[in-house]
Amino acid sequence: MRWVRYVDADGRPRYGWVYDGKVGPVTGSPWGEYERGEATLPLDEVRLLPPVQPSKIVCVGRNYAAHAAEHGAEVPKTPLIFLKPPSALIGPGEAIVLPPQSKQVEHEAELAVVIGRRGRWIRPDEAWDYVWGYTVANDVTARDLQRRDGQWTRAKGFDTFAPLGPWVDTEFDPTDVAVMARVNGEERQLGFTREMVFSIPQLIAYISSVMTLLPGDVILTGTPAGVSPLHPGDVVEVEVEGLGVLRNPVVAETRP
Amino acid sequence: MRWVRYVDADGRPRYGWVYDGKVGPVTGSPWGEYERGEATLPLDEVRLLPPVQPSKIVCVGRNYAAHAAEHGAEVPKTPLIFLKPPSALIGPGEAIVLPPQSKQVEHEAELAVVIGRRGRWIRPDEAWDYVWGYTVANDVTARDLQRRDGQWTRAKGFDTFAPLGPWVDTEFDPTDVAVMARVNGEERQLGFTREMVFSIPQLIAYISSVMTLLPGDVILTGTPAGVSPLHPGDVVEVEVEGLGVLRNPVVAETRP
Repeated sequence: MRWVRYVDADGRPRYGWVYDGKVGPVTGSPWGEYERGEATLPLDEVRLLPPVQPSKIVCVGRNYAAHAAEHGAEVPKTPLIFLKPPSALIGPGEAIVLPPQSKQVEHEAELAVVIGRRGRWIRPDEAWDYVWGYTVANDVTARDLQRRDGQWTRAKGFDTFAPLGPWVDTEFDPTDVAVMARVNGEERQLGFTREMVFSIPQLIAYISSVMTLLPGDVILTGTPAGVSPLHPGDVVEVEVEGLGVLRNPVVAETRP
Repeated sequence: MRWVRYVDADGRPRYGWVYDGKVGPVTGSPWGEYERGEATLPLDEVRLLPPVQPSKIVCVGRNYAAHAAEHGAEVPKTPLIFLKPPSALIGPGEAIVLPPQSKQVEHEAELAVVIGRRGRWIRPDEAWDYVWGYTVANDVTARDLQRRDGQWTRAKGFDTFAPLGPWVDTEFDPTDVAVMARVNGEERQLGFTREMVFSIPQLIAYISSVMTLLPGDVILTGTPAGVSPLHPGDVVEVEVEGLGVLRNPVVAETRP
């Protein structure tokens, strides 16, 4: 099943599901009891929101060797984790806003794992049981500030720097699919999830040995090679093969 | 007014207020309409929770020159920000759990600012209008992992590494007070908020130039010199003069 969050006819955010290009309402909790209503709204007439509201967004750095190499960095011996604030989330179609503080904002195409069950010290062999589903993410990064600051929080944490969507697919097989980014239709990033340095079960085990994972929490699994700068007027698409396409326009922010 | 969150007679978490050593219930929103019930429960018989549920916890590194010096680090030219996950929060009296991954977990006494109003690009001269109140925090840190990882997310992000409380005081004047830590009654850290490298208005302006601040969000304003390791059986107290004392025992975690 493909879950979305969207703005209903009364202007309220709610969960929904997608079937045959149409959206229907879902009542209840994605991780408990729920009921599906008929899918009647054409997907392209619905305003989609980020498909979940995570209590935290845990990201993994340098999880594809070819991307680490393009920055002259080594692949880490253990997963390199960092956080993006929930305030950075935007949905499909919303604009990525380039802040005046940076001269080099780049896309990073990523497969996102969404947690469905509370857990700490999850073992790799039971990790799949804690996954609710998968979605597509763009780990937008101010590369110049990332280099300058040391800590990556500012460079990765601006408002709009966490596009997520269009849906969470609970039946997707993420083990060997392409992860791509295109800017204005032109391919920039291409990699395959089988090339991850640390697998999804290893990431879940590692992160949950530090912090309790909660339903709705999101793990960004790292980006393949080919990151490149974004400019006002660009349209960036991140695609995970067989899962979906996350498309966002790019605009410039002027300091108020 | 001093706000708390506590577990009521039905076992449910709720907001309350403190008056003359007693706790009473509050109905409504701290940032909107609310009503106070009579304060009748003795404070020492109530189980206090972290006094807010932030969507994000933004921390500031090296904001006291004497602490930066004790790690051989320079004072940064702009605030050095990082995030702790909400899953790290614990309330007064709850145990700080030393994880098996670290051999050197240290306390960091801090004044915490709690936001009361949504804002982005807040100017320093209007920053006070966005503050709801103040509380006491311990930015517990696995110093060995902080050095090893580069990014501080793991070292600062373990469950229980964000003790917060006992209350949010909405009338407190934070501009020139002592910030202290004691371990088993013995003083370890002492500094004064007037020694901050970046003032509270400067921090709010800087952080909100990156990310939208929301009601309940917490800013940890940095720690003075004197950090030291914690051991199982210790009791650590963080005090902000005139605001309150945050006391937490320390236990060891064994890997399951």
